[in-house]
Amino acid sequence: MNRTMLAILKVLEKHPEIILGSREISRQLKLHGVEITERTVRYHLRILDERGLTKVFGKEGRMITHKGKEELSQSLVSEKVGFVISKIETLSYLTNFDFEKMEGDIILNVSFFPEEKLKEALKIMKPVFTSSYIMHDKVVLHRGGEKIGDIVIPHGQVGFGTVCSVTINGIFLKAGIPVTSKFGGVLQIENSEPSRFTALISYEGSSLDPLEIFIKSRMTDVMGATKNHNGKILASFREIPVVSLEKVKELSAVMKGKGIGGILLIGNPNQPLLEIPVATDKSGMVIVGGLNPIAALEESGILTISKAMSTLCRFSDLIKFKELL
Amino acid sequence: MNRTMLAILKVLEKHPEIILGSREISRQLKLHGVEITERTVRYHLRILDERGLTKVFGKEGRMITHKGKEELSQSLVSEKVGFVISKIETLSYLTNFDFEKMEGDIILNVSFFPEEKLKEALKIMKPVFTSSYIMHDKVVLHRGGEKIGDIVIPHGQVGFGTVCSVTINGIFLKAGIPVTSKFGGVLQIENSEPSRFTALISYEGSSLDPLEIFIKSRMTDVMGATKNHNGKILASFREIPVVSLEKVKELSAVMKGKGIGGILLIGNPNQPLLEIPVATDKSGMVIVGGLNPIAALEESGILTISKAMSTLCRFSDLIKFKELL
Repeated sequence: MNRTMLAILKVLEKHPEIILGSREISRQLKLHGVEITERTVRYHLRILDERGLTKVFGKEGRMITHKGKEELSQSLVSEKVGFVISKIETLSYLTNFDFEKMEGDIILNVSFFPEEKLKEALKIMKPVFTSSYIMHDKVVLHRGGEKIGDIVIPHGQVGFGTVCSVTINGIFLKAGIPVTSKFGGVLQIENSEPSRFTALISYEGSSLDPLEIFIKSRMTDVMGATKNHNGKILASFREIPVVSLEKVKELSAVMKGKGIGGILLIGNPNQPLLEIPVATDKSGMVIVGGLNPIAALEESGILTISKAMSTLCRFSDLIKFKELL
Repeated sequence: MNRTMLAILKVLEKHPEIILGSREISRQLKLHGVEITERTVRYHLRILDERGLTKVFGKEGRMITHKGKEELSQSLVSEKVGFVISKIETLSYLTNFDFEKMEGDIILNVSFFPEEKLKEALKIMKPVFTSSYIMHDKVVLHRGGEKIGDIVIPHGQVGFGTVCSVTINGIFLKAGIPVTSKFGGVLQIENSEPSRFTALISYEGSSLDPLEIFIKSRMTDVMGATKNHNGKILASFREIPVVSLEKVKELSAVMKGKGIGGILLIGNPNQPLLEIPVATDKSGMVIVGGLNPIAALEESGILTISKAMSTLCRFSDLIKFKELL
C-alpha cells in the first residue's frame, strides 16, 4: 500500500455516497499536493479494485468499500503519531464560530451507544449537564441511519454529539490568540475544586485521543465529581502567550455569559499551574473535556464508542440537553 | 504538600516495614539531594502526622500510612510526565543480568488477578507462553500475603511476574549499546508476521505506561495472534545507534539461543521500520511487550491489575511457566 493509493482512498472516503471518476479523483488529489495524471489514477484504482478496497460503479466510477475504509483507518499509523495534535490545529483553523452572534460551525465530539439505553443514559448524564464540567449544554441527538455532520449512525445505536473543547482554540484563534494544546489528562476534583492531574498524555506523542483512552480505561469518576463534589474528570492542559492573558480573561468572561463554559483555570505568567510547568512567556489554562457526559455513561456500565473532534456542525442545529428529557 | 514532605514520604515508602527515625530520614534525604537538618525533618513529620500520612512508632520513629502511600502515588503527576521514560532509563541501568551465565537481576512486570481464576488463567496463557510474543518462558507466581521483590500481593489475589522487555535495554547497555525507547504500541500480526502498528504512544509524553493502557482499553488481540496467526499484540519501538547494529544482531542471536526472545525486528540504518521513521544514524527495533500473557487474560474477561517495570528480581527465583500447569 503506497502513499498514492492511500491518498486515493482518502479522497473516496470523503465522499462515501458519491461515485467518483478518475478525472475528479485526479483533480481532488491536486488539492492534497498529489499531482498524478488520470491515467495513473486509473492504474492505481485497478490495484485497489483487485484488493477489494474500492468497487467499480458505472463506466469508470469508484466508491470505497468497507474493507477500504478499514485499511485507511489502520494504515500509516506513523503518520498518526502527532496526528492528534495536527487534527486539533486543523480543526481550530476550520471552525468559524462567532460567539457574539452565537452562529457558525462548532466542533463536535460524536459518541454512539445502544438505542435501548437512551432513557437510562439521559438520566445518568443529567447531573453532568447541570455541572460546570461541560463545554455547553446544547447537544445533538440522532437515531441509527441518520447523520451527524458526515458521520452515519449505525442502526440500533444513537449518535450523541457534544461541543468539543477544541472549539475554544478556534474562538481564540479568530481573536488572534494562538492556543497550544499540551496534554489530555484526568483531573482530580476535591470539594468541587480542581486539585491536580492524576494522569497526563501529551497530544504530540499520541496517535489516539488521550481522553478517549481515559474513558475506555475507566480512569474517570465524573459521577463522583458532579454528585459528591469529589471525583475525577476529563480535562486538558493548554498554553497561551502571556501577552494575550488579559484578552483571554476578558473573552472567557463574555463566553461564560453566553453559556460557553469549559475554562476551569487560567494560570499566572510563567508560573506552573496545578504543578505543571509552562513554556517561557506562556500561561497555563485548564479546560474541561467535552466528553465528560460520555465518561459518566461508561462509569455506569453503558458501552460507548466515541470519536473526539469528529466533525464540524452548525451551532443552530444543536438543541438544549434538557429538551431531551 | 511541598517537595520536602513528598521526599520524606518517598524515603518512608521505600522501607514500608522499618520504623525510621528523623536522623536516618535526614541521612537518606541527602542521598536524594535534599539537605535538611533532623530538626527540620521532625517539623515536617509532625505536619505529616497531623494529616494522617505518617504514624508515630516508638519514641520518634515513623512509618508511612496507607493514606500516605495514596498521596504519594497521586501527587506531583507533572513529575510523572516523562516519568515512564525516566523509569525505563533508571531500571536499564540498575539491572545487572548476565545473559551468558544466566544470572543476576532482571526487571519484572507484576500483575495481580483473583486467586479463584488461577486455573483458568494458566490455561488461557498457555498458548501465549509457547508463542514468540513473550520475553522469556520463566515467570514468578506467589499467593496473597507473599511478596514479589518489594511488592506485597493483596489477599485473595495471586501475583504473577513476567520478564519485562526493559531487561533487553539493560543487557545492551552493559555491552555498551544505548537503547532509546520511543513508543509503546499495538502491533498488528498478519499470517504470523508483524505488519504495522495500529496505535502508538510516546514514552516521553506519558505519565502512564502505554502498554498498561492498551490492555485496559482492550485494544489487543493476543489470543488471535497466538491461535489464528492474526491478531494484535503489545510491542514497543526502540532505536539503537547504527554503529552498534552488527553487535546488536550478534547479541540478539546468542540471547535467543538462551531462551531470551522478544526482539521481533531490527531495521536497516536510517530506514523507517514498519513505516516508523528513525532519528539520524539510528536503526529501529521492535520488541514484544512482556505483558502479552496478561493482555490475553483481559481479552478473556479476567480482570487484572498490572504494574509494568515493577521491581528487580533474581533470575534464579523464576520458574518455567509449564511447571505451573
